[in-house]
Amino acid sequence: MTPPSDNTAGTEVRRALGRDDVLAYAQLTDDFNPIHVDEAFAAESPFGHTIVHGTLTLTLVWELLAALRPPQGAHGSRVTVRFTAPVAVGETVTATLEEAAAADGPMHIVVRRADGATALTAAVRQP
Amino acid sequence: MTPPSDNTAGTEVRRALGRDDVLAYAQLTDDFNPIHVDEAFAAESPFGHTIVHGTLTLTLVWELLAALRPPQGAHGSRVTVRFTAPVAVGETVTATLEEAAAADGPMHIVVRRADGATALTAAVRQP
Repeated sequence: MTPPSDNTAGTEVRRALGRDDVLAYAQLTDDFNPIHVDEAFAAESPFGHTIVHGTLTLTLVWELLAALRPPQGAHGSRVTVRFTAPVAVGETVTATLEEAAAADGPMHIVVRRADGATALTAAVRQP
Repeated sequence: MTPPSDNTAGTEVRRALGRDDVLAYAQLTDDFNPIHVDEAFAAESPFGHTIVHGTLTLTLVWELLAALRPPQGAHGSRVTVRFTAPVAVGETVTATLEEAAAADGPMHIVVRRADGATALTAAVRQP
């Protein structure tokens, strides 16, 4: 019997994306778009609140890849990402490795918000 | 005559990715893989030196999108990224908007190292 692998459909990483994370990411990328950092501005926007940089939410995909056994990195990979719904600052998101459609196909990772809505999907092909 | 647009092939953003950036990104993503942060470890690796997180280099793509007129964001977009070569910590990389293959096709962005090698490519489709 093979031991259970951590690299199986259903593997998850979960993380709260708080204001400190958003400010650190804004600093790092020099992206201080007010929709991310200015609560008064964002309250008047169609979103109604500040939202996390989509590319910060995207880091969950690599957190999940790094949590697999063996860990998977970015180098040499091809990744297709679709950003589908905004994430409110302070929200907890969960990245899940979905069931593979085919043994030699890409890995599918879904990052969901606390309410279950899909924030983004990523298809990852390793070299 | 239409005024020159900033949103044209050849638009560039350039950035040095230093040790401080890599440490801030490691902190933010909780990815302290020694290949990124441990110079003694990295010197013994096939790379021979510490390398920038691929997903930190990827942030240049959105810096470029934000520099276009009108600025383009992540929300609703579909992005295919191919990571092709490592970037040494301390290196300066340049993201360039390439000539469009077709008017209604994706935007192609290439991030190159100082030596001209392609670090990554991104095809961006807006909703």
